[in-house]
Amino acid sequence: MIRVRNPGRLNVGILASGRGSNFEAIADAIERGDLNAEIKLIISDKEDALVLKKGAKRKIPVLCVKPGDFSDAAVYERALIAAFRSAEAELVALAGYMRLIGDEFINAFPYCIVNIHPALLPSFRGLNAQRQALEAGVRFSGCTVHIVDRGMDTGPIILQAAVPVCGDDDEESLSNRILEEEHKIYWRALRLYCEGRLYVEEKKVLISEEKDRRK
Amino acid sequence: MIRVRNPGRLNVGILASGRGSNFEAIADAIERGDLNAEIKLIISDKEDALVLKKGAKRKIPVLCVKPGDFSDAAVYERALIAAFRSAEAELVALAGYMRLIGDEFINAFPYCIVNIHPALLPSFRGLNAQRQALEAGVRFSGCTVHIVDRGMDTGPIILQAAVPVCGDDDEESLSNRILEEEHKIYWRALRLYCEGRLYVEEKKVLISEEKDRRK
Repeated sequence: MIRVRNPGRLNVGILASGRGSNFEAIADAIERGDLNAEIKLIISDKEDALVLKKGAKRKIPVLCVKPGDFSDAAVYERALIAAFRSAEAELVALAGYMRLIGDEFINAFPYCIVNIHPALLPSFRGLNAQRQALEAGVRFSGCTVHIVDRGMDTGPIILQAAVPVCGDDDEESLSNRILEEEHKIYWRALRLYCEGRLYVEEKKVLISEEKDRRK
Repeated sequence: MIRVRNPGRLNVGILASGRGSNFEAIADAIERGDLNAEIKLIISDKEDALVLKKGAKRKIPVLCVKPGDFSDAAVYERALIAAFRSAEAELVALAGYMRLIGDEFINAFPYCIVNIHPALLPSFRGLNAQRQALEAGVRFSGCTVHIVDRGMDTGPIILQAAVPVCGDDDEESLSNRILEEEHKIYWRALRLYCEGRLYVEEKKVLISEEKDRRK
């Protein structure tokens, strides 16, 4: 069993492509004093991403790094690694970032790249998870914060929240209901890093009391 | 969209292999007056199944039909169909029945063979769903009542319940927590048949208010 990180203030990098509502929920938790962390840098692969504006408004350094400006994905990711490292980010939180993460990036932040996915994994990996849930006719869906590995939404699960699916839900109403829970569990998952409570055993995350109770 | 059944008292057949706790939860709901149904016959493929004793104790006709006594699976299932039909069962509820159901059986009771599975489908199909959930490290699992189709735990979902997974859970503790919910949702799913509230559209079940709300 590997302890993911010792307790202490956490320096966070955000890698996002969109409106940045999960970034805001994390930033709000920090401001409220619920999360002993600092967001050191926000990177987006899209220059018109709303998250860049929102970050700048909060006086957080923001950067647009476009894959098209690099010769290949590995070189692009090396730029991301360099930027996060020079900003002293220890953990990279993906927030609506729509690309797979390569080996070099994963190895640069061991167990410290996290993602939030709008489904109860392992159900509904990949794109349009809420639509997938509606098409499958499930009565519960939810969201998952997980450590990023080489697969698409396959890494060890840190926290999840379950959400009912209603018969008259469309993609938007279900997405909104799930998003509310995303905003509650993402910073809580980061807090477990701050508290030094996360351990990894093979493909599984253990949270420290859980680990102790197993003794 | 197909209406599965018109409202009215429901004649139920039970097909089980084990201890029959889900059978008991259904029988209790009928006794309490929560479910307008009658259990007309219990069939087990195992002669030592506790469900047979429990059924007989409640004065319900019980039958052991062993696949090994028949030349092949199709002939065996024809015997099951004949027995359920002659008992006037309209719906067959699987309760811990560990075999796939063949085409002829499915066609004999259209949309009226139901199963309960100890996971939030589509996650963790097949055997040992609770162990699969523990090994995957999920934070929520649950149970699913679904209409049986040709696949293994793939049919249209009627009802689900979500259940938290705790860090110190073993297979037994998680199974027990899920089982409590199974006992709550199985008879409720059957009640939707009694009330004539179930509709099927492609691979999806709609419950009538849901259908109305979509108009």
